[in-house]
Amino acid sequence: MVASCFYTLLILFVAIYGLAAAAAAAAVIATLPPHQKLDQIDRLPGQPSVEFNQYSGYVTVDANAGRALFYWFVEAPAALQPAPLVLWLTGGPGCSSIAYGASEELGPFQIQPDGRTLNLNPYSWNKVANILFLESPAGVGFSYTNRTSDLYTAGDQRTAVDAYTFLVNWFERFPQYKFRDFYMTGESYAGHYVPQLSQIVYRKNQGVQSPSINFKGFMVGNAVTDDDNDLFGTFEHWWTHGLISDKTYKALNAACKSQSSQHPSAACLKQVDAADKEMGDIDPYSIYTPTCNISSSSLKRKLRGHYPWMSRAYDPCTYRYAEEYYNHPEVQRALHANVTGLNYAWKECSDIIAQNWGDSPKSMLPIYKELIAAGLRIWIFSGDADSVVPLTATRYSINALNLTTLIDWYPWYDHGNVGGWSQVYKGLNFVTIRGAGHEVPILKPRQALILFSHFLKNKPMPSV
Amino acid sequence: MVASCFYTLLILFVAIYGLAAAAAAAAVIATLPPHQKLDQIDRLPGQPSVEFNQYSGYVTVDANAGRALFYWFVEAPAALQPAPLVLWLTGGPGCSSIAYGASEELGPFQIQPDGRTLNLNPYSWNKVANILFLESPAGVGFSYTNRTSDLYTAGDQRTAVDAYTFLVNWFERFPQYKFRDFYMTGESYAGHYVPQLSQIVYRKNQGVQSPSINFKGFMVGNAVTDDDNDLFGTFEHWWTHGLISDKTYKALNAACKSQSSQHPSAACLKQVDAADKEMGDIDPYSIYTPTCNISSSSLKRKLRGHYPWMSRAYDPCTYRYAEEYYNHPEVQRALHANVTGLNYAWKECSDIIAQNWGDSPKSMLPIYKELIAAGLRIWIFSGDADSVVPLTATRYSINALNLTTLIDWYPWYDHGNVGGWSQVYKGLNFVTIRGAGHEVPILKPRQALILFSHFLKNKPMPSV
Repeated sequence: MVASCFYTLLILFVAIYGLAAAAAAAAVIATLPPHQKLDQIDRLPGQPSVEFNQYSGYVTVDANAGRALFYWFVEAPAALQPAPLVLWLTGGPGCSSIAYGASEELGPFQIQPDGRTLNLNPYSWNKVANILFLESPAGVGFSYTNRTSDLYTAGDQRTAVDAYTFLVNWFERFPQYKFRDFYMTGESYAGHYVPQLSQIVYRKNQGVQSPSINFKGFMVGNAVTDDDNDLFGTFEHWWTHGLISDKTYKALNAACKSQSSQHPSAACLKQVDAADKEMGDIDPYSIYTPTCNISSSSLKRKLRGHYPWMSRAYDPCTYRYAEEYYNHPEVQRALHANVTGLNYAWKECSDIIAQNWGDSPKSMLPIYKELIAAGLRIWIFSGDADSVVPLTATRYSINALNLTTLIDWYPWYDHGNVGGWSQVYKGLNFVTIRGAGHEVPILKPRQALILFSHFLKNKPMPSV
Repeated sequence: MVASCFYTLLILFVAIYGLAAAAAAAAVIATLPPHQKLDQIDRLPGQPSVEFNQYSGYVTVDANAGRALFYWFVEAPAALQPAPLVLWLTGGPGCSSIAYGASEELGPFQIQPDGRTLNLNPYSWNKVANILFLESPAGVGFSYTNRTSDLYTAGDQRTAVDAYTFLVNWFERFPQYKFRDFYMTGESYAGHYVPQLSQIVYRKNQGVQSPSINFKGFMVGNAVTDDDNDLFGTFEHWWTHGLISDKTYKALNAACKSQSSQHPSAACLKQVDAADKEMGDIDPYSIYTPTCNISSSSLKRKLRGHYPWMSRAYDPCTYRYAEEYYNHPEVQRALHANVTGLNYAWKECSDIIAQNWGDSPKSMLPIYKELIAAGLRIWIFSGDADSVVPLTATRYSINALNLTTLIDWYPWYDHGNVGGWSQVYKGLNFVTIRGAGHEVPILKPRQALILFSHFLKNKPMPSV
């Protein structure tokens, strides 16, 4: 009887606590500022019940041009607050952060093959931070512009300025996140977006006593960083991993020397095409995993004439689920997306944006130098089975910074297994993820969450 | 009733056919020469029923010293005869062909974790050829010598001479295989054994009208070939795959230049040790797969002071099953093994042999030149996820032969997936297996059987 009574009390206590928590949550919702309330997601179609809040909607970045960027904001559970705020940017250029980051990699849900059901991602990064996914620039995903010419003139600079305008306005809409520790993360061509946006935020914050965008640092993975080193290191990765012939290896190095990764010469592209043929029907973004049953060659064909390894980062099966899911009208309604009635379907990557990309500086290293000197937290990671922006490219780019080594190359461990390797420099931490491709969290989700947690804590990766 | 009658007849027919086949098999057994009959394996403990014959036993190679080599011969099914005869040699030096080749890779059975049960390997190479596994040299596995000093003076030359003597005597014991198409295959340090034995057989056959050892060619994988190229290519593989620091990469190239892979200097070994520490607890023979639950570091410790990447090739779990299985007295009885009562347990690799290895020429390339000129069929393969004798090492060694390319580097396919890449030279065919480690057939069994079949047919790997 004693035990029974104890359990009755316990159940009662839990029930009361639950009611109180629900009331508190309701109170929070009731007091939301109007636009936050408008942006709040009640429930996404096919979604399981969750213990965190989500918001999504548009932030206008240029009223004259009618440019508005779409965001999806996934908070950490209430018990974890105040957790840091982290912006995620996928690269391309032209690819959607909601498609890749949110839906395939580090977001809270995984879209199931039916294109309708969402499962919980046990390694979602919102377990340790509030994650803000941004579709950038305008023309990508649900982000739009009313000035068609914008689609044909996108480039690094406007992308960064628009993203900064987005941030300023978003913080106005979510003032509770002002002064919160703020970080940026991203992958691939976000190796340009993130440092460039970081530089703007850092410079705008200069001299401000307590800036509302409380920017602390960034982390990028398999990141386009420095064209010379990227190209040289990429070709070396291809040859040493057995993807290309000796002949093509030599020809690539000769034809692509001092080229821009975004605007290579015809001679360089010719050798890249030859390499592409030699590689065959593998997934260049994850060279040891099988391709999806609809062969990725059909995708590759669509990219003919473009730099194949810069254009998109995909898991050849999951992209189909996302393209189905985000085109359901009820999903778009739940997301407050496509409010202007776009005359095209939602796509993971915009070909128009990618094919007409404008300014793309050849090196991010000057920005790294500036931001390292500023004492920002900077981490770079690399999935070592990616042949698109591979490990060797990143090693050469980092070496070009000539930083002092604090902890030399060492294996880091996850449950007794080598998760990858790391080298800690003065001002920069480099971490590799063993066996992961271009989209690190899709293949190595637990290791990616360990990485992200250590970045937030600014702790070197565990050496045992 | 018609159907029922049909099935009765069918069952009757099958029964009669079965009886006839059994009688024929019995007849074959009855007419076996005495020593073949002695060597015939009735049934291995834990073995499922099979449709092929097996033999095992000892062949004396030096009566004075009391040196005898142990073999296990697995025939192809009767329906496939006369199939080619293929010798398999595992490397080390000091490792057993029965442990690796037969029990983990291409043999007919897979030893289960209970150490007692054998499952059928659906991709066994005896589906297309008669496979002869040889434990070589004396001191390895069940092969023995009564002259203890032999164990401390083993080296390439005696290994090759003994293996040749074995072959001559084995053909006397199995005269039905005289004049049969004969090939050699092997991996790792068998990159020495196979070309050296090939050279002896080839030279002995010179001028003989119709040699009884009807040697046609060989195939080796992840093969030690040319120390300079192997070392340079190995270090490059380590760095480009992110296993070691920039510092150690440079130091390795400086300290190990012009070293022998078997007898490196202390300065070189010191850098190899440093590299080993940086790699951490990965399986160097398959860098992307997990290690077994008993960590491989305990194995590595046992190898302290020796060249870690030459010493053994193991799957850290299956080696335990083999060591248990082959030490059961009833298994040894069934195999006609350990007839002299060895005073040590059967082991996958002999530390004494490995640690006291004598002559080891720095390059096999002169033998390649001789045998290519002789028109022998020569194939080299490489599992590209092996860091012990890696792809880059093999590419450099082959390049040093300066052969004419007939078909440049191209992807080969298995069911629409890229199985690896291949380059066809005049006189040599090079094939890689994507994602496979040092022991190719253990991780990529189907692809390995496709490779072996194409080698036997001398057909380039399928390009679609």
